[in-house]
Amino acid sequence: VRPIVTFLTDFGHRDPFVGIMKGVVLGLCPDAQLVDLCHEVPAYDTLGASFVLHTAVGVFPPGTVHVVVVDPGVGGPRRPILAEVDGQRYVAPDNGILSYPMATARAARTRHLTAPEFWRHPVSASFHGRDLFAPVAGHLAAGVDPARLGPEIGDPVRLDLPPLRCAPGALSGRVMWVDRFGNCITNIRQEEIAACLAAGRPDAVRVSVAGRPVGPMVGTFGDLPVGGTGAIRGSAGYLELVCNQGNLSREWQVTAGDPVHLEGPPPV
Amino acid sequence: VRPIVTFLTDFGHRDPFVGIMKGVVLGLCPDAQLVDLCHEVPAYDTLGASFVLHTAVGVFPPGTVHVVVVDPGVGGPRRPILAEVDGQRYVAPDNGILSYPMATARAARTRHLTAPEFWRHPVSASFHGRDLFAPVAGHLAAGVDPARLGPEIGDPVRLDLPPLRCAPGALSGRVMWVDRFGNCITNIRQEEIAACLAAGRPDAVRVSVAGRPVGPMVGTFGDLPVGGTGAIRGSAGYLELVCNQGNLSREWQVTAGDPVHLEGPPPV
Amino acid sequence: VRPIVTFLTDFGHRDPFVGIMKGVVLGLCPDAQLVDLCHEVPAYDTLGASFVLHTAVGVFPPGTVHVVVVDPGVGGPRRPILAEVDGQRYVAPDNGILSYPMATARAARTRHLTAPEFWRHPVSASFHGRDLFAPVAGHLAAGVDPARLGPEIGDPVRLDLPPLRCAPGALSGRVMWVDRFGNCITNIRQEEIAACLAAGRPDAVRVSVAGRPVGPMVGTFGDLPVGGTGAIRGSAGYLELVCNQGNLSREWQVTAGDPVHLEGPPPV
Repeated sequence: VRPIVTFLTDFGHRDPFVGIMKGVVLGLCPDAQLVDLCHEVPAYDTLGASFVLHTAVGVFPPGTVHVVVVDPGVGGPRRPILAEVDGQRYVAPDNGILSYPMATARAARTRHLTAPEFWRHPVSASFHGRDLFAPVAGHLAAGVDPARLGPEIGDPVRLDLPPLRCAPGALSGRVMWVDRFGNCITNIRQEEIAACLAAGRPDAVRVSVAGRPVGPMVGTFGDLPVGGTGAIRGSAGYLELVCNQGNLSREWQVTAGDPVHLEGPPPV
Repeated sequence: VRPIVTFLTDFGHRDPFVGIMKGVVLGLCPDAQLVDLCHEVPAYDTLGASFVLHTAVGVFPPGTVHVVVVDPGVGGPRRPILAEVDGQRYVAPDNGILSYPMATARAARTRHLTAPEFWRHPVSASFHGRDLFAPVAGHLAAGVDPARLGPEIGDPVRLDLPPLRCAPGALSGRVMWVDRFGNCITNIRQEEIAACLAAGRPDAVRVSVAGRPVGPMVGTFGDLPVGGTGAIRGSAGYLELVCNQGNLSREWQVTAGDPVHLEGPPPV
Repeated sequence: VRPIVTFLTDFGHRDPFVGIMKGVVLGLCPDAQLVDLCHEVPAYDTLGASFVLHTAVGVFPPGTVHVVVVDPGVGGPRRPILAEVDGQRYVAPDNGILSYPMATARAARTRHLTAPEFWRHPVSASFHGRDLFAPVAGHLAAGVDPARLGPEIGDPVRLDLPPLRCAPGALSGRVMWVDRFGNCITNIRQEEIAACLAAGRPDAVRVSVAGRPVGPMVGTFGDLPVGGTGAIRGSAGYLELVCNQGNLSREWQVTAGDPVHLEGPPPV
């Protein structure tokens, strides 16, 4: 089976940076399958990147290598790492960007990438994507044993994940990611809703964002009138605030970080 | 030969949705060649998507699988379909998005995708690209017999295609797609021009858009002065309104849907 | 080893043009690895395209085919060419877009693409990317001998590259490319700085852009305070004007073409 290498960065689409990383990978592993996950992470938003990464990796076969480069500390003392989490492999700066995949991990092992023979030289001060992460990914995809890349570490950086506050009849979280359609993806899962609010009564739950009522919890977009707002269970399992055929984020000025609140009958 | 799978969506480039669909396809068909056709279809514009799809697919080898997801009705009753049209294969929602490829088809067969064993479960309410269309595409690319995916149907949804009005000496159509350069691609083909207007006299034909004269029909951009406007035969065979080294759409506020009119000597 | 074909254009990301070129290549060379280098070259900016191409190609294995289509003269008399430069192969219009790769070449050979049996017919007047450059790239990737594609020529078009003015204690160049982060990449290399200014004294060098002082030359972003501006040696070896976690181009309205000036102690 051909190895898969994915890329998630904040590099955008106007520069050759992603293509350069791909050239490095193909030079080391000509048979790799290369997949762009996302390159429009808001610049330096490691938390949002971590969340969106976590919503995307589940579909990839075990052994996939994910190159994750949102790296405001490039050239500084932050460590480059390889993390093996539930069968997926990540090469990334150790700045917390893997916090979400790690938070839900059943099994994780992290290595400090210290073996320069697997890098591209000279290593620049500003583009470790090209000089360190892509070469390591290429070697991994080509079958290099992870143990040769550096020693295991037990203390990868973990971001403080935005908390969920759950009380009987009330649940608070926040917007984590706004997608192209203006849908606002929260950090609230169905399980947590069921733990705080009466199951089976979605019509009795009141959802608000930044203090403004959003409308009902519905099963799908089509359950809302055109232009109507509400909340659905999003495709990654998180509650999502939406406007049917409209753009909730733009119309209501909702952005990542905005507080989301649910109220309703407590569980029986 | 390695199977080709293309993607045309309105998902844009800021989210991982397209990469997620590719992960699903590669999990089922590791050897697939994946090609992005277009992800910036204006949200929910099934007609424009259909037109631009039709202008793109002709270069692909027979058997190519096109994943087409502009799907405002996702989660609702609209059917998911597989259409085999002139050797190309399309998986798409049955919302008319295949109308243009079907309109010019010499041979077409459509199936309702009803066999859940070829889907990804649980099927979400909002991302059938991941859960239904990509898995079906992956199975098709891996060689699954289309007959196993669902029964043939005879009534796929067809959009009303914008009409061409042709009279001797006059021809009317509309702008279908505005490209990155601001060129305005119409639904008027050379054959129709020849049927309504005197062939061989392009300089005698007057072209206007939304009532405003565009200038002459010319052979290529370079036949216009820099900044000059006119009409050329576009690369997909449709008349295109252009500004040499300028952006006609932006400067004249031309958008998809605007009427286009040609007048000139009738055919002899 | 699977052949690599890259694409650098000004086609942007909203149209199917790049996907169409890929379909043509895959029809001729089903096993090709396709890599997008850059599609957001400012429309018709052949000089910027040439510079950014030159900063990207070094990581690709010898024999890589680069399809380079920034082509304001499409359909006119400009020649289509194949250039073999230091082991990389370029198919492009002969409008100077290969000037930067050629300027630093150790070995280069250029051919006029004249053999229509390697093109796609009919050749349109406006999309030679599809009809000429992609087919030639596909044939090259599939192993066709370059000599069959057309005769050698000795006079490919060369753009006047923006000059560097170097005097003891002073060095002038310009901004060539602004990246997604607002970093301003200049045409000034470390070697030229060392030739004009005292080596080992980067703190004594004053850098300005468009007459405005930028701040110190530093080793990496982290050597600047957050929001602070300065100059670093960029990843492609060129001096880069930056703002740590800010966007220098946007905040200071710096664009490609702006003059950059360095002053400091002359070399001893």
